[in-house]
Amino acid sequence: MANWLRFRHGAENYFGTLEGESITVYEGDLFDNPRPTEHTQSLDNVEILIPCHPSKMVGLWNNVRSAAVKQGWAIPEEPFSFIKPPSCYLPHRGIIRKPNSYSGRVVYEGELAIVIGRQCANVTIEESPDVIFGYTCANDVTALQLINQDESFQQWSRAKGFDTFGVFGPTIKTDISPDELIVKTELNGRVRQDYPVSDFVFSPAEIVAAISRDTTLFPGDVILCGTGNGVLPMKPGSKVEIVIEGIGTLSNTFAA
Amino acid sequence: MANWLRFRHGAENYFGTLEGESITVYEGDLFDNPRPTEHTQSLDNVEILIPCHPSKMVGLWNNVRSAAVKQGWAIPEEPFSFIKPPSCYLPHRGIIRKPNSYSGRVVYEGELAIVIGRQCANVTIEESPDVIFGYTCANDVTALQLINQDESFQQWSRAKGFDTFGVFGPTIKTDISPDELIVKTELNGRVRQDYPVSDFVFSPAEIVAAISRDTTLFPGDVILCGTGNGVLPMKPGSKVEIVIEGIGTLSNTFAA
Repeated sequence: MANWLRFRHGAENYFGTLEGESITVYEGDLFDNPRPTEHTQSLDNVEILIPCHPSKMVGLWNNVRSAAVKQGWAIPEEPFSFIKPPSCYLPHRGIIRKPNSYSGRVVYEGELAIVIGRQCANVTIEESPDVIFGYTCANDVTALQLINQDESFQQWSRAKGFDTFGVFGPTIKTDISPDELIVKTELNGRVRQDYPVSDFVFSPAEIVAAISRDTTLFPGDVILCGTGNGVLPMKPGSKVEIVIEGIGTLSNTFAA
Repeated sequence: MANWLRFRHGAENYFGTLEGESITVYEGDLFDNPRPTEHTQSLDNVEILIPCHPSKMVGLWNNVRSAAVKQGWAIPEEPFSFIKPPSCYLPHRGIIRKPNSYSGRVVYEGELAIVIGRQCANVTIEESPDVIFGYTCANDVTALQLINQDESFQQWSRAKGFDTFGVFGPTIKTDISPDELIVKTELNGRVRQDYPVSDFVFSPAEIVAAISRDTTLFPGDVILCGTGNGVLPMKPGSKVEIVIEGIGTLSNTFAA
């Protein structure tokens, strides 16, 4: 089990593993035989970056049963997905910003995120654990009122693709089973989302199998597993934390 | 005016400019002070690659007036966009493949594509020409029946994001005005699409301004301008060519 992160120190970017408050610096490629160095760094001294550079970030809609029940949505037969572009990626402690072209509600969506470790396509459910590098926390920020603003075209990618709307990190936890994890979201310190991965319609292994049938996955690609009940708008200055015990806490503020 | 392409020769990738059948090989970065070398190469001897590596490919829906009229779609007040992931990119002469997870009709959509040359956000319509590097041809391949298969969720990104569905190239033409261009699509040698850029709801300059308000654009990002009437399914072995006089011909086959 390791806890990988990328970080900035001085004018350089590094990656390594975190234990407590101490980072062991690695060299090479996170997904291809990374090698530990003799250097360490204190977490206090660094700026945390996004933990990897996904060539694509795939998001899921309607993948938590209790949310589907509450909203009256039919349980889907296969995952419903959308794409968030790389320009929207934001790290731990980055500031989420209101779009220029939208004045409606901007909501958080606390989610478990899968990080792919190997190039793969047509993965079976049984093979999925072999291509999953690890898991991280995500906030699938959404301009909620934009999605169905026009009845002829649902604007999923746009509503979820504004700059700063693809928040993930702070670290990638490897060699854990996701089945017992609980996803919580705290808005200004108050728990607003609290749902178990066991309530997913499609498990992480099933999601990877389904998405990899459609599109080749690459090391560092990220799949957001969909959110549960308790989605709320953020107000200027709101602090939002996605807390998954066993992985970490992803903390951000909405611009004042 | 230049005609840029990327290509493979032997075991190496190169980029350069095409004049007639002769390529002048360049070195450095296509979008940052590329430098000509003394090497040339014959077009016959190379394999054409995608002309750049977009960090994102944005597609537009319902941007051609005559198509909107024929389909009974309202003219949109702002561009409707979706994202095609990098895993779907396919070059000139690449083979378009049927998805594993979809058995319905797969259609071509011949389109003009904008290639961005500079990192930018919040570009005005007047500034747009300064951030547009050039134009290329695109085939926005679509699993048409998937989009509205489920009434609760329009699957735009999935229907347009399967491997091999993001076809663009063969070259990027710089320093041209798009206003007089005509987009044609030939299916097995017969013209099936034939529409002018002057029939766009949003011009390329207006599109870049709108998209750059939502998401930062990077050098090499590609925006597909939407298609006109004449979209048809491809059959196994179909040859599809997107022809834009003044830019080039993008030729592909659908897998037999």
